[in-house]
Parts: sequence; C-alpha cells; structure tokens
Amino acid sequence: MTRLGVNRYGKSRVRLSRITRRGDRHEFQEWTVRVLLQGEFDTSFTEADNSKVLPTDTMKNTVYSIARDCKTETIEEYAMELGDYLLAQHGHILKVDVEVGERAWQHMQIDGAPENTTFKLGGPELQTVAANRARDGAWKLTSGIDGLTILKTTKSSFTGYLKDRLTTLKPATDRIFGTSATVTWEYGKIDVDFGNIRRQILAALQREFAAHNSMSVQHTLYDMGKAGLAVVPEIERITLTMPNLHHLLADLSPFGQDNPNHIFVPIDEPHGYIEATIER
Amino acid sequence: MTRLGVNRYGKSRVRLSRITRRGDRHEFQEWTVRVLLQGEFDTSFTEADNSKVLPTDTMKNTVYSIARDCKTETIEEYAMELGDYLLAQHGHILKVDVEVGERAWQHMQIDGAPENTTFKLGGPELQTVAANRARDGAWKLTSGIDGLTILKTTKSSFTGYLKDRLTTLKPATDRIFGTSATVTWEYGKIDVDFGNIRRQILAALQREFAAHNSMSVQHTLYDMGKAGLAVVPEIERITLTMPNLHHLLADLSPFGQDNPNHIFVPIDEPHGYIEATIER
Amino acid sequence: MTRLGVNRYGKSRVRLSRITRRGDRHEFQEWTVRVLLQGEFDTSFTEADNSKVLPTDTMKNTVYSIARDCKTETIEEYAMELGDYLLAQHGHILKVDVEVGERAWQHMQIDGAPENTTFKLGGPELQTVAANRARDGAWKLTSGIDGLTILKTTKSSFTGYLKDRLTTLKPATDRIFGTSATVTWEYGKIDVDFGNIRRQILAALQREFAAHNSMSVQHTLYDMGKAGLAVVPEIERITLTMPNLHHLLADLSPFGQDNPNHIFVPIDEPHGYIEATIER
Amino acid sequence: MTRLGVNRYGKSRVRLSRITRRGDRHEFQEWTVRVLLQGEFDTSFTEADNSKVLPTDTMKNTVYSIARDCKTETIEEYAMELGDYLLAQHGHILKVDVEVGERAWQHMQIDGAPENTTFKLGGPELQTVAANRARDGAWKLTSGIDGLTILKTTKSSFTGYLKDRLTTLKPATDRIFGTSATVTWEYGKIDVDFGNIRRQILAALQREFAAHNSMSVQHTLYDMGKAGLAVVPEIERITLTMPNLHHLLADLSPFGQDNPNHIFVPIDEPHGYIEATIER
Repeated sequence: MTRLGVNRYGKSRVRLSRITRRGDRHEFQEWTVRVLLQGEFDTSFTEADNSKVLPTDTMKNTVYSIARDCKTETIEEYAMELGDYLLAQHGHILKVDVEVGERAWQHMQIDGAPENTTFKLGGPELQTVAANRARDGAWKLTSGIDGLTILKTTKSSFTGYLKDRLTTLKPATDRIFGTSATVTWEYGKIDVDFGNIRRQILAALQREFAAHNSMSVQHTLYDMGKAGLAVVPEIERITLTMPNLHHLLADLSPFGQDNPNHIFVPIDEPHGYIEATIER
Repeated sequence: MTRLGVNRYGKSRVRLSRITRRGDRHEFQEWTVRVLLQGEFDTSFTEADNSKVLPTDTMKNTVYSIARDCKTETIEEYAMELGDYLLAQHGHILKVDVEVGERAWQHMQIDGAPENTTFKLGGPELQTVAANRARDGAWKLTSGIDGLTILKTTKSSFTGYLKDRLTTLKPATDRIFGTSATVTWEYGKIDVDFGNIRRQILAALQREFAAHNSMSVQHTLYDMGKAGLAVVPEIERITLTMPNLHHLLADLSPFGQDNPNHIFVPIDEPHGYIEATIER
Repeated sequence: MTRLGVNRYGKSRVRLSRITRRGDRHEFQEWTVRVLLQGEFDTSFTEADNSKVLPTDTMKNTVYSIARDCKTETIEEYAMELGDYLLAQHGHILKVDVEVGERAWQHMQIDGAPENTTFKLGGPELQTVAANRARDGAWKLTSGIDGLTILKTTKSSFTGYLKDRLTTLKPATDRIFGTSATVTWEYGKIDVDFGNIRRQILAALQREFAAHNSMSVQHTLYDMGKAGLAVVPEIERITLTMPNLHHLLADLSPFGQDNPNHIFVPIDEPHGYIEATIER
Repeated sequence: MTRLGVNRYGKSRVRLSRITRRGDRHEFQEWTVRVLLQGEFDTSFTEADNSKVLPTDTMKNTVYSIARDCKTETIEEYAMELGDYLLAQHGHILKVDVEVGERAWQHMQIDGAPENTTFKLGGPELQTVAANRARDGAWKLTSGIDGLTILKTTKSSFTGYLKDRLTTLKPATDRIFGTSATVTWEYGKIDVDFGNIRRQILAALQREFAAHNSMSVQHTLYDMGKAGLAVVPEIERITLTMPNLHHLLADLSPFGQDNPNHIFVPIDEPHGYIEATIER
C-alpha cells in the first residue's frame, strides 16, 4: 500500500516589472515570484480529480492582477497581499507560500546625480522574501538578500587552526576575504517598516564586514549577525551563509619573483561554506 | 544579548574524477562533493578561537585521500566512508553531512556498441546522494536524481480544473508534458545494493512516465512514485518535484493557419511546480 | 561628421518545438532560431524613420508561420526556407542570416528499446546551422555541433613540448583528454542530404576521437578533421574548436598515497583552447 | 588530400586578481584573460611534433608572471605587455591575440563614502579589451564593455513601422526600453590615456541613453554612438549591440483591470537584436 504524503504545487519564476510614478521621478522594480499552495488537493494526485485544482496559470494571472492594485513598495507586503487573496478566494487552500526576489535596479548616476527615469542593474544580488501562512495562523516572514558579492583586501587572517595528517594549508595573516553572501532575517511581527528595516540591516552588515578584524569567516559572520540584530529590535534572528570565495596567492617563486600579496588566483570551486544563525 | 544558534561549515563544490580499470574496460566517474560539519565549533564564531576548526582546505584534501583508497562504485558508500573517517578522526565533530552529485558520463557508442575507454556526457541530470550521520546515530541516506529532463508528446491532458474570475487557461486534451524532474528516495537501511536499487527506481519512473495516461502533472507524479516504490521494498518514501516546463501551442490563427498540435513555443519561465512525497 | 557603418538587426532566441507524427511514432524537435537582416534600413538609425523596419516581432511570427508549413526535418532546409520567404516578401531586405540550434532530444529507452512518443534530453550539445544569403547570391551554409562533451581515459599523452623559463608543466604519457567540442563544416552545394551528412560526420569524428593515439589536442583535432572530410565528399572544410578541459592528477603524496592515474581534479578554468580548419 | 588551414591555440579563462596599494587606499581588480597564438605550429597538428608548442600551461604562468611586474592599471596596457613578451620570447610566434575582461568591483559605499579596502560587485558588466598584433605589425586594440544592463521608463516609442501579413505588433508610444549592451571601440593609436577615454565614452553613452527621445532601438543606438565619438577624438568607430530586452505590458483586461503602463512582463527570450557600427 502506498499513500500520498506531504505535497504542494504552484507557479515558479513568474516575472513582473512595475513602474511607480511620482511626478517626474519613477521607481522601477523587477520581481520574480513563486506561489505554492497546500490544501485539499489529494485527489488530484490519487484519483485524477482536477475539480479542486486551481491551475498554476491562474496563479500567474493572480500575481499580475494583485500587483496592479497593490499600493505597497515592499516585496513583504506584496507577498502577504497575494497570499491573503488566495486564502480568501478558495476555502480549500489551507496554506500558502509566496517567495519574491527583487533585482538590484538603481537610478543611473549621470554626472554624479541619480537620473529620474533611467536605471542600471547594480549587482547580482536579489532582495528576497519568503512568506507563508496557514489558514488559521499568522504570517511567517523571512526577508533577506541573496548573492551579495563583497570582498575586503585587509584585516583578514586565518591562523591557529586544527591540523591533522591531511592538513596542508598554510596560515594566512593577510588574505583576501571574498564572499557571495546569503542573509535572511525573521520577523516576530508584521506591522513594521519593512523597507527601513531592510536598509538598516544591510547597512549594518556591510559596515561590520568592512570594519571587522577577521580571524576567520566564522568570526566575521557572527559579528555581522550581531551588528544586524543591534540595529533592528523588530527581528529575532539572522541567518548568514557566507561561502569563502577563495583568492589564492599566486606562487611566482618558480619564476624567481616574489609576490607580496599582490597577484592572486580567484577560484569559484571548491569554496568554503560557513552558515550560522545568530539570535537574541 | 545575542547568541549563536544552529551553525555548520565545510567545503562545497569539491570536484573529483576517477578512472576504474577492469582490464581493457574503464569506468569513468565525475563527482562534485560537499562536506559540512557540526560540532564543538561555537568558539570559532564567538571568540575567534580557531583551535578546533578543521580547515575546509583539509576537508578538500580528505575528499581526495578517501577517494583514493575507496573500493566502492557508488556515491552512497563513498559518502558514508568519507563521513565515518571524519567522525572517527575528530571527536569534537558531532554531525557530518555529505552530498555527492555524479554527472551522466556514459560509454560512447561507436557503431552501436559501447567503446571501452571513451565517454560522452549523456544528459544534464546528476545522480545524487545526501548522507548525514550524528556521532551516536545511524546514517540517514537520501539518494536521488536532479534534472532528469524528459518529455512526452501523447497521453497528457488537463481538463476539469477549478475556475475562478482570474482563470483564462483553456482545457487541453493533448498537450506536451515536459519536465526536469528531481527525485529523492530515503533508505530505511544501508546494507543494500545501492547501484541496483538506483537503476531499478529510475527505470520504473521512466517506464511509468512513458506509459501513463496523464490527467495532470499531479496524477503522473503520484503514479510514478507508486511505480518506484513497487520495485524496491528497501525504500520507504519517494519525493518527486516535477516542474511543468510548458510548450504552449503557437497561435497561428492571425496568419490564417491551423495548428493541429504541431508547432509549440517552449518557455522556461514561468513554470508549474508540483512536489509530493509518496510513501508506504 | 559621423556616419552609419555596417549594421543588421533581427530577432534572437526564438524558440519553437515541433511534433512530427508518423503513425504511432513521433519525432520531437526543439529549435532556437535567430534571424538577422541587412538592407535598406539606414534611415531607421539616422533619421528615426521606421517605415522600412520590419518589426522583430514580425520576424518571430514568421519563424512560427514558416515552421507550420515546412515539410523538412533538417534545420538546414528550414533555415533556407525561412530566409527565402523573407527575401521574397520584402525587396529592401538585401541579406538574411538565419541560425538554428537543435537540442539533443532522443527517444527514451525503455527496456533497451526506443519508446515511440517519449523523449529524454541526451546531452548538452546543440546541432547547429548558420545560413546566410545575399539577395543576388547563393546560400552559404555552415552546419555543425556545439558543446559535444566527450572524454577518453587512454591513448593521450603530451610530451616533447617547448620549454621556456616560465614552464612548469610535467610531461604526461597517460592523461585524461576531455573536451566540449564545437565543430562546423561548410557546404559547397545545397542539394545534398543534410541529415545523412551530419550523421556521417559526427560518427566519423567520434570514432576517430575514440581510436586516436593522441600526442596532443592539436594532433587529435587534425586527425578528426581528416576523418570527417574522408566520409563526406560534399564538404570542403571542417573547423574544430576543442577546449582542453583539464583533469589534473590529484597530488596525494603529502598524504603518503600514490595515485596511479586513478583520482583526478577536474577544472573548468583555465582551459586550453585549440582551433583549426582542415580543408581539402 | 587534406591540409591544415587557419589555426590558433592558447589558454582561455585564466583568472587573476590584483591588489594595488596606495597608502591606506587599495584598488582591487579581477581579470579573466585569454591568450591565443598563431605561428609556426603546423607540424603539431600534422606530424604530432610538439617541439615548437609552448604549452598552454606556460601561457597561464606567463599571465601571472607579467601581471606581477606590470605597472599599469589598464587592461589595454597589460594586454600589450603580455603579448609583446610572448612575441619577444619566441620567434616562431607570428601573431598574438589577448583578451581581458575586468569585473565591476567598486569601493563599497559606507554611509555615503567609499571605503578604502572593501569592495562590492557593482553590476554584471565586464570592461573588455581585445588586442592583437602580428610580429611585424602594430597593435590593434578594441576596447569595450559587455553586458551593460540599463533601462529607461520614459521617452521610448516604436511606431510607423512596416506591416506585412504576419505583423501583429501594436504601436507603442510609451514603452520600457531595456538592454544589456555590448559596446566596442577601436583605437587608431595606442599612446593614449585608455582609462580616461573609457570613462568618457561610457559616461557619454549612458548620458545619451538617458536623455534620448527614442523612436526605436536603432535610433537610440545611433545617437549613442555619435555621442561616444563626440567626446573622444582618439577613436575612429564604435560598434554597439543592443538586444531589446522586452518588458511586455501585462494584459489585465480579462480581469476587468486597466494597466496604464504600470505592470509589465519581462522576458529574456525572444529578444530583439540591433547592431551597428558608427564611424567618422
């Protein structure tokens, strides 16, 4: 005997862009949305009964229709509005998950000033939210950033580590520290200023990354998390994943050249992987 | 006050390839390995104390060193051997996670026969395993496949679904059904023939996909899971994620042409997303 | 004073899929098409005069409309049919370029036999054609394959090379030879059996790659080109680009282990790059 | 009879990063280099004679060794220094091609000011150079940028175009204009200030893109090219490739909603492709 276990379905990679006009100044946002539903859908799997299946194509339409009337600027509020609509519309939907990623479009700088209606993609990072709500529960919101690609050329060492018979690494007192960080933070309540909190956390994380006298990725990651929590009382925990994107010192000794931390070989793989949650 | 929560660290995207020689015939495997550790590492985060930190570079070395002496052909046995070594070597490692992905290298077909020492990449799919073990526990093994890219041109319909005010989809009685499936299955015990089980499950899944008279992705996904469980008593549950990679019928009516399911527009985004666990 | 130089425009990444039915057996093809035009379009650049600009959206429509009525199975004949239509339709188009790439869909093997209506993606490679014709000229056709990912574990050495003061490479007498080959061949005439020629060339290239006793990538590339030309008198020249996708022997000596060509470290970058045209 | 035609070989995707220290302020650059050689290498193809083959591994070493002693900040001067070294070192190298791409690392902004030793990746674009020189000739330099991802939300229309029986596009008087531009410019002489010219051209291109009242991509592309030539007398021609990355107005009429250029559907494929050279 087999039976259906946990299941969910929905639409992924629904892309939308939006212009918000405030007189001569425009804001431009580009989002990728994923909507997943759980509920009374078992017979679609087990009995080929589609009568309760809201087509994923309709979910796509819903993404656009809700975006049209939505007044918010934040992906957090949009995600909740979209999910609330689906729960309200169909009683057999018991849980909704919405994820939104926003690309890093910025006003183009012309002669040092932001141009009103022209934009440039400012990095690979995505601003993110994962929002889910069960029908009888509250919204659970996890905001964050993916792919924040940053690097420092000073104040990073790695020494004093454990050695075993397979250790060949040499201690480093002045290495490059590069990462493509993924950060998420969970909200304890939802009547907050999401945009402002996001700006504050990201500023605090980057300020700490720059200032930190790093003894390891772990060390810096923890102090970045602490710095993030320090500026926003509204959040309970921050999770940081910081791959160590290595820049290996080029060995020029076979060519009779020294290399005083000048020339490096960047590699994408393999890479260190450090992940931790910092909480109150 | 802040404190360290859940944390782990390790090395990701460690790549290795291996030739196994049996007389004139070679086997060639290419793996990408990730090793993550949990244990008594808190002070590396909180106090910049690296004395218990096994460098991720050493983990990389360990991947290669263990692979050298490892006799197994399966990624499952290799993953456990690697993890057991690390747990045995360092008492303060309390949990180890190993993931391995194997690329789809196949013996090249020359005049219809497999060549002994030449290989061709046979698809985008990866054979996978995620293996983890706590120091005092047993191995928990989840094997699978990622990116199995398959498609059928008959026996796929989608009708009778729920309509609401935002539904614009037209019912389809003869559509293309394409997917890039991710499948995982959990083992209840580990003294089994991993290679044989893998071959049997994958054959059963593909046979069912081909034969199935699909009323929806959900319907086919469930019956594929059932078919997988039917052939291997050793496994308890299968999870399938099957994005619906749409091929939309091209609308040629503005040009005065019909289109009897002949010409389609494939799109990558957005795509349907269907996921379920089938269990005994 | 500035003036407009060479220019062209068109539509890129137009994707289409097509089912061809022969009784119970279906053929499935998936193409990505690019169409570029040259002609009397200068004033669209210099005077904002769009009156002669065929919208790229119309080119997209044309890709689908021509595909509907097209009887051929080959991308070569489709490309020419599409281009001829555009030249015939609009006298001010003076040159048309069409490129088509076809994905490696194959009938799924079930119990060793090809299933009639189910398909599996069989590799990363694309079958390609680049076809161009000036209004008063003949079609110039270059067919090929992109990303043919192949590898051999024997009969590959690299010794006796030039050494200078920066050379650190050690000679290898038994290395892995892996590549992701791009091959193109030019047709001298167009009333040929494109499908058959393609099959013959690709079989000859792979047979030679497998059999070859390689002294260098250059050496094997040349003999593969010769083998291709030998089987198809209809073509005049073959160009092969064969990046050397290195698998470096893992150095296990720090761990007290030997490594008799057993464990390797595959790297994507940097990679050797070898390119040559072989001609009659 | 077959013979060897045009051929070249070298090393691709050689990555290097470099820290330049000026007191407390660091500059950080990350480059990917390709070196290709032509010369008296025919017998390596035709006779398996490696005696004149400089290994691609040695070219990789050369990339690093030259970078160590190189004083320049520009990829143009580095490319020429690297190529000149190879030509000087080995008389049988008859032509050298060097390509360098530089990633968009920028000083991180902390509280509105650039931090001295911390960096953030500021976009997907690469600063590029393609430099080639025949032994007895002068350097031919083409600099540029790849993947400059920009977008404007006003002053873009497309009307008055040619219609044929397959045209379904509606005229647009206020559309989003997005592109990922590739631009190259050729130098007529090489004793110029490459860094300054690059900054001036890029500023001029972006200023024109923002200000332009666009009647088509062609129209804007041409005026951008003119603007680039206007600021730098040292260059003779600019080539721009500007794919039209469409943001389609979402059709909300089935849902009873209007859409006054507010919500769009961004698509990556298909996309318009416009390319032209503007010259003096």
